Amino acid sequence: MKKLVHGGDIYSERNIKTIVDFSANINPLGLPKSVKEAIVSNLDNYMNYPDPLCRELRQAIAKHESTLADNIICGNGAADIIFKIALALKPKKTLLIAPTFSEYEESIRYIDGEIKYYDLKENKEFNIEKDILDYITADLNMMFICNPNNPTGIPVKSKEMIEIVKRCEEKDVILVVDECFIDFLKDEEAYSISKFIDKYKNLIILKAFTKIYAMAGIRLGYMICSNELILDKVNAIGQPWSVSTVASKCGVAALNEVEYVKKSKENIEVNREYLIDELKKLGFKVFDSKANFIFFKANDKELNVKLEEHGVLIRSCRNYKNLGDGFFRIAVKGEKDNIYLIDCLKKIGVV
Amino acid sequence: MKKLVHGGDIYSERNIKTIVDFSANINPLGLPKSVKEAIVSNLDNYMNYPDPLCRELRQAIAKHESTLADNIICGNGAADIIFKIALALKPKKTLLIAPTFSEYEESIRYIDGEIKYYDLKENKEFNIEKDILDYITADLNMMFICNPNNPTGIPVKSKEMIEIVKRCEEKDVILVVDECFIDFLKDEEAYSISKFIDKYKNLIILKAFTKIYAMAGIRLGYMICSNELILDKVNAIGQPWSVSTVASKCGVAALNEVEYVKKSKENIEVNREYLIDELKKLGFKVFDSKANFIFFKANDKELNVKLEEHGVLIRSCRNYKNLGDGFFRIAVKGEKDNIYLIDCLKKIGVV
Repeated sequence: MKKLVHGGDIYSERNIKTIVDFSANINPLGLPKSVKEAIVSNLDNYMNYPDPLCRELRQAIAKHESTLADNIICGNGAADIIFKIALALKPKKTLLIAPTFSEYEESIRYIDGEIKYYDLKENKEFNIEKDILDYITADLNMMFICNPNNPTGIPVKSKEMIEIVKRCEEKDVILVVDECFIDFLKDEEAYSISKFIDKYKNLIILKAFTKIYAMAGIRLGYMICSNELILDKVNAIGQPWSVSTVASKCGVAALNEVEYVKKSKENIEVNREYLIDELKKLGFKVFDSKANFIFFKANDKELNVKLEEHGVLIRSCRNYKNLGDGFFRIAVKGEKDNIYLIDCLKKIGVV
Repeated sequence: MKKLVHGGDIYSERNIKTIVDFSANINPLGLPKSVKEAIVSNLDNYMNYPDPLCRELRQAIAKHESTLADNIICGNGAADIIFKIALALKPKKTLLIAPTFSEYEESIRYIDGEIKYYDLKENKEFNIEKDILDYITADLNMMFICNPNNPTGIPVKSKEMIEIVKRCEEKDVILVVDECFIDFLKDEEAYSISKFIDKYKNLIILKAFTKIYAMAGIRLGYMICSNELILDKVNAIGQPWSVSTVASKCGVAALNEVEYVKKSKENIEVNREYLIDELKKLGFKVFDSKANFIFFKANDKELNVKLEEHGVLIRSCRNYKNLGDGFFRIAVKGEKDNIYLIDCLKKIGVV
């Protein structure tokens, strides 16, 4: 049997009555209207095979990212691309942040790659510190950084990230920067390095439609890279039709949703501040999460179990590397759900 | 750049004005009504991650196939599963039929596996002969058979296939039988060996929703196997969410479409016979295709190019192993399209 290692298990019988899922980080505004319309208006196109070259979609993404369509590879969600990168480039030794999104490690383990960890420290508030540069050594082939990091929600400024890219370049290390949550940051321009994609040939940027456009069930992600050799290798992996026509049409529609993204960011910001304030008032140790999810520490190691009794799912971070018991992650949801969560925490009472 | 090696390139600018695509083998009846309804009625579910365990879908497939849900693995189209099988089981040496669907070879080449070929012969009408058993030797780890074969459309009877399974069992070879087109056969019971899945632990059966339910753009396929070790290995490959919620909901709806499948088979049969008769009258050498596509030989090696000028795409089989120039494959489409194709061939005039 496949194992469940992520949040969002709203399908198990136990959870089918769940009222609110805070364990998966999805934009609470739901699918944009134009994306729903694209799904419906293309019903008659789904009988044909998708375009293996994703021509229409890559053109739209390229315009959105101000780069060339040839620099874009689309996949069945960003998670699909993470595996393709590992399979295509087969890094012998990879540097990972701990804790971080577990699929990087899964994909590297699959190709029998060695892993070195940069451990984030609680007494440094789980920030990536300057000493990360010392960890980037010539024995490495690859490095993954999730920006902002998952599960902490803490971002790295673009200036510091560029130092990391340069150090990787010096040491001949391919750097994969996962910017899947970057659209939720208030001032994403200060964090994203996608604008430097043409300059650094050792850089791969991952993006997904999953989070910001609430398209998790549709599956669509992409990578940006200007290194032809890397692009050719990743393109050669797997089946020709990994991106469904549904996903492709949704992606093209979503990229026109400028107002929706603006509204989403504002909505997340207000609700994130509310949740952080209330969690702090309740005595939890809350870290400096700036994304659409919040990372905090509780004395009560069974907090998630107690919340489940109230019909609320939160993400216990127990199975993340370098995190002990008592760490939790919650998504920032809509006002009503957030108030309900805080009310439940008040009822449970123990911090 | 990714290369285009299959049919169905209706997205290139050159083909955007194409009237009829005979190069991809899709049920001409199009998406069943209930599948379209399932897509629309689930619009609000697509914001959530899909169920990584595909519980509802695997239950429905298990019922349909009269087996256990634990024996089913779903994927992003059957092509996704072919790659997962190769990656999971890493066969050192694999027996392939030539010609056959190219993704088997692609997936084995990717894991640097050695390939041995059983060449189909034109003077044997491209049938798999009894001597295939002599090709199944103890140095092999895996064998793929597409039944009915693609591009020939010629099926192997279940009695003969069981001899192949047994021989593979004797020699410790995993046999993958791709039954993606089997639903189109008039008497599929005489060909399918899915009912023997519990008996043979070296057997994997591939099925897809792509062809019979015209769901190529949705992406959904599955494998059936009763060998726990194989299931565990394949389940361990790749991302957790390879099957989209859209595909999952479509699959559940499609499996109730008993009447649609019956009607599709009848429709294909009548139209196949028409096309075969007309092609023969025109002097082409037509092979004994029993699926929803027809394999034939023409003296005119540029037939596909000439048909393109009439807005018709057919599949040149030039890039299949063990086929020279002059072999072509056409899908069986609806009456109007089929008549149009025959009219075009008459206009072109040369056989």
